[in-house]
Amino acid sequence: MSDLKNDRLLRALRREPVDVTPVWIMRQAGRYLPEYRATRERAGDFLTLCQTPELACEVTLQPLRRFPLDAAILFSDILTIPDAMGLGLEFAEGEGPRFRHPVRSADAIARLGVPDPETELRYVMDAVRLIRRELAGTVPLIGFAGSPWTLATYMVEGGSSRDFTEIKRMLFDEPTLVHQLLDVVTRAIELYLRAQIAAGAQAVMVFDTWGGVLTPRDYREFSLAYMRRIVAELASKPDRPNVPIILFTKNGGAWIEAMAETGCDALGLDWTIDIGEARRRVGTHVALQGNMDPSVLYASPARIRTEVAAVLAAYGEGSGHVFNLGHGIHPQIDPEHVSACVDAVHELSVPYHR
Amino acid sequence: MSDLKNDRLLRALRREPVDVTPVWIMRQAGRYLPEYRATRERAGDFLTLCQTPELACEVTLQPLRRFPLDAAILFSDILTIPDAMGLGLEFAEGEGPRFRHPVRSADAIARLGVPDPETELRYVMDAVRLIRRELAGTVPLIGFAGSPWTLATYMVEGGSSRDFTEIKRMLFDEPTLVHQLLDVVTRAIELYLRAQIAAGAQAVMVFDTWGGVLTPRDYREFSLAYMRRIVAELASKPDRPNVPIILFTKNGGAWIEAMAETGCDALGLDWTIDIGEARRRVGTHVALQGNMDPSVLYASPARIRTEVAAVLAAYGEGSGHVFNLGHGIHPQIDPEHVSACVDAVHELSVPYHR
Repeated sequence: MSDLKNDRLLRALRREPVDVTPVWIMRQAGRYLPEYRATRERAGDFLTLCQTPELACEVTLQPLRRFPLDAAILFSDILTIPDAMGLGLEFAEGEGPRFRHPVRSADAIARLGVPDPETELRYVMDAVRLIRRELAGTVPLIGFAGSPWTLATYMVEGGSSRDFTEIKRMLFDEPTLVHQLLDVVTRAIELYLRAQIAAGAQAVMVFDTWGGVLTPRDYREFSLAYMRRIVAELASKPDRPNVPIILFTKNGGAWIEAMAETGCDALGLDWTIDIGEARRRVGTHVALQGNMDPSVLYASPARIRTEVAAVLAAYGEGSGHVFNLGHGIHPQIDPEHVSACVDAVHELSVPYHR
Repeated sequence: MSDLKNDRLLRALRREPVDVTPVWIMRQAGRYLPEYRATRERAGDFLTLCQTPELACEVTLQPLRRFPLDAAILFSDILTIPDAMGLGLEFAEGEGPRFRHPVRSADAIARLGVPDPETELRYVMDAVRLIRRELAGTVPLIGFAGSPWTLATYMVEGGSSRDFTEIKRMLFDEPTLVHQLLDVVTRAIELYLRAQIAAGAQAVMVFDTWGGVLTPRDYREFSLAYMRRIVAELASKPDRPNVPIILFTKNGGAWIEAMAETGCDALGLDWTIDIGEARRRVGTHVALQGNMDPSVLYASPARIRTEVAAVLAAYGEGSGHVFNLGHGIHPQIDPEHVSACVDAVHELSVPYHR
């Protein structure tokens, strides 16, 4: 960590003093950048982009060449694990992800194995190593995985879902089966994140995109319990180089106390909660990452600056805040607006760190 | 009210004693019923079904013939108002609603007029009158409207939306314009609901389907403030026959205190909040409607019964609870499962009303 030229992100995640609030942007390597679209074009399709370490490294670094961001995040997809489990991931143009072999029976679940990260997901680990080398200590690299519940929804539904019909039917009628699925997925995620850390990830984030579609009771049982296992697993190993863990449940604002109690280092917040309120509730336990409405970036640079100021003011003085959007950046955003946002965070946060 | 054979709904909405917990189901007149699909087939399309009072009345009554529900709800659509404003509503088969003339400029907003309910939306009022006559005092009839913010999202986006790009851009860069739009829509909703009440609606519900995509600050300014105006308007008229008002913001669990302070009689709750917690927070001010996960109805009747019991237990003893799902019933649900749910509510709630 002391080798990093810019260690603001790691310091903020540990609630240690920083000079200004660090900022990165979910999906910062993405379709809003013309250079990303060009590389993706060259790759041919999204999966090839993920699976070719040189290309994944290239798109990971693209936003850092444009903006003074305080972190890189591995370019990859949360569905690499189920793909490596044999479900057959496909991305049809203009549609969401699809699995050729969804998992809907006790047999199918029993057959699932835990992929070995360094062989079956080697392309991810190679990308991590390559990115770390290319970053050359400028900013830290964030690794990530989907949450067990979130991966399970895709594995059972066979893709994106609106109502989560299949997995919820299973949850209510065959909860043991869902737990069996979550168990194997959790073990896979643990190995995967440990391998990313071993390959060079300096912080990791768990994306629980769909935990918010559960009742409070079912969230605790089917999503949070398994994220807690991951946090405990990563924290328990003596060889773990003190890598901060960020948990993010979209629409999880009601449950941040329970999330903070997992022992994670930071919580990602979407934009439906006031970050000042979140800090009062859990800020003595964890750092907070977020939480500007991604749609603010459609507005004029002047308005973006006002909104950045509002989020910084809501968090208030002191460390423990990593500025981010409350969700991934939309593909139609003008890169100039991202620039206005990142600059505003650095400029306007100075008074909060005196 | 004293003329009603079954006034449980109205009593529960006023937190007066009841013998058992009343129950109705959002979208109870809908695609999960074969008789609904047959009537819709006969109508030809969804809009004709809404706009033909005899057919709207027929589908409104269908679920009451099958299940001992404690309320009827007018069969209609929240987009009737913008359609009457001249936006040209269309429902393409298998897709969501579309407006031929979305509203995206100051000029377009300035041109919007407030429809006269008894002429331009007469088909709705005729349906209300017909349904009241056919119900013959068995159960109360609930009228409804979309919230100003929710209608505005459809009017600006031109249909359903994922990211609410256009209206959010307008919200951040031209907030005055959005307020102008919300003002005219609010006046239209006020007239519309008053006309429904005059025609016979015995309770009214405001569906704020998209308030939950806003930040807490923007929710107060762009959604809640206008619902508060509607509540005040309806409550202020001496001729108002004491009709309870239910507000429902999907994903609004964090804001129920502010919603309760509008002066409404009840809050609809989705399934992402524990109804017992909601009662502790606002139950001395308002009744609560909800909040079983709609996906529970995919499960076996035995499991449905267990989940009904859990919601009833979470609310606890005494009146003030109207059982419902946390969102509209899904089209694939087996009607037998609805039957199991409704019966379970009546049977299992007896001990809570001694």
